[in-house]
Amino acid sequence: MSKPLILVTNDDGIVAPGIRALVEIASSLGDVVVVAPDSPQSGKGHAITIHEPLRLKKVNPFPGIEAWESSGTPVDCVKLAKHIVLKGRPVDLCVSGINHGSNASINILYSGTLSAAMEAALESIRSVGFSLLDYSFDADFEPAKPWVRRVMEFMLSRPFQPGQLLNVNIPKLPSAELRGLRICRQADARWKEKMVEGCDPSGQPYYWLSGEFSNGDQGTDTDVWALENGYISVVPSMHDLTNYPAIETLKGLENA
Amino acid sequence: MSKPLILVTNDDGIVAPGIRALVEIASSLGDVVVVAPDSPQSGKGHAITIHEPLRLKKVNPFPGIEAWESSGTPVDCVKLAKHIVLKGRPVDLCVSGINHGSNASINILYSGTLSAAMEAALESIRSVGFSLLDYSFDADFEPAKPWVRRVMEFMLSRPFQPGQLLNVNIPKLPSAELRGLRICRQADARWKEKMVEGCDPSGQPYYWLSGEFSNGDQGTDTDVWALENGYISVVPSMHDLTNYPAIETLKGLENA
Repeated sequence: MSKPLILVTNDDGIVAPGIRALVEIASSLGDVVVVAPDSPQSGKGHAITIHEPLRLKKVNPFPGIEAWESSGTPVDCVKLAKHIVLKGRPVDLCVSGINHGSNASINILYSGTLSAAMEAALESIRSVGFSLLDYSFDADFEPAKPWVRRVMEFMLSRPFQPGQLLNVNIPKLPSAELRGLRICRQADARWKEKMVEGCDPSGQPYYWLSGEFSNGDQGTDTDVWALENGYISVVPSMHDLTNYPAIETLKGLENA
Repeated sequence: MSKPLILVTNDDGIVAPGIRALVEIASSLGDVVVVAPDSPQSGKGHAITIHEPLRLKKVNPFPGIEAWESSGTPVDCVKLAKHIVLKGRPVDLCVSGINHGSNASINILYSGTLSAAMEAALESIRSVGFSLLDYSFDADFEPAKPWVRRVMEFMLSRPFQPGQLLNVNIPKLPSAELRGLRICRQADARWKEKMVEGCDPSGQPYYWLSGEFSNGDQGTDTDVWALENGYISVVPSMHDLTNYPAIETLKGLENA
């Protein structure tokens, strides 16, 4: 039987240690093709490049693994993988990450890592975004690896269901303190943000986004709760943003 | 009684005719503050600017209306409005658009217009993204105006509910053929895309995203159906991307 084809991407860029960890695991489970950004693309959400052309270059950061770097966003990378690199060859699993930093709760909206995974899911590819709760470049991915592998094996072993997308976050803990996987809902948390104000060397004002994450969601079934309690959170996610319960409450607008 | 405060933004940029139409309607309903991108930001999704500073400049494209242009994305504009321009002053309604082109179905994921509205909704501001199904710069917004006004009046008149976000799309039709508002779910449609390949003047290859929208969703309760049948579609939308029905089906992974 032929090995599964696994597409690997991320948003921290092709030289980030997180994608190296993911390539290592993926290549033990299947044939791997990497298409990832040539520069950091954190916070790019589901952005695509419309007003300018994209570049795509074959590179060799992972010996023996086909790899391409692109000037585009993470979502652009998935589109380039489909149309140019793989030319429609069926992908069995897309994995994105391992992100340096959390993508739990509403961070899924801002995350290039998860948006790339969602783009693959829109193309009916089983897809997982992985994130480690450590923003540093030299984060230690070793404790996460067995869990990342377990999730990938699970996804590859399941019958296909369209739009299958998982948002997996891993606490920054030593191996012995990781308590296992937990299926969760997305916590209804927020960023408490501020704009840092400054003046550039020519005297012009600038503003720079800063903030800290704040969870007001008291549920014990959320990803934030799981992470705070030593679990790896797994949130099944989707592209349908319809607020179904609100449909009935708005019917009055039709006749307004 | 003081007039409501209405924040106006968009993704086509502050000089686009669509935002001018929206400012005109908003200023007849309340006090208006505009914070919009200084350049086109279509397809930016929920992108935010992390790795560089933002610029913000007071401008005067709408006589008598406070207006600012920013170097950032549409979501950045909402954050700058909150923290710098309004300094926490409560906003009664945020409106984004009127976008030149459809944001129905999954286009909500890629749309800067709707992502700006969603960002405001995350900040507990009633919020509406408006789009006209006409991509041209000189699109005719006149037939849309009474309906845009009706939706804004409805939102301002309702008791506040957190996370209240509407995705409103308007067909490109003469006034007499617009059949009214219809509350819908997001159609499960897709883009059939391709990458146009070319060579730049220095002989380097480039790729440019192209495609056409294709609706395979047969429902008559979708936004795409409404638009194809002469209705203005109104989809209540939300930031919770959890795929709740999938939670149970994944429980096996916890013990895998």
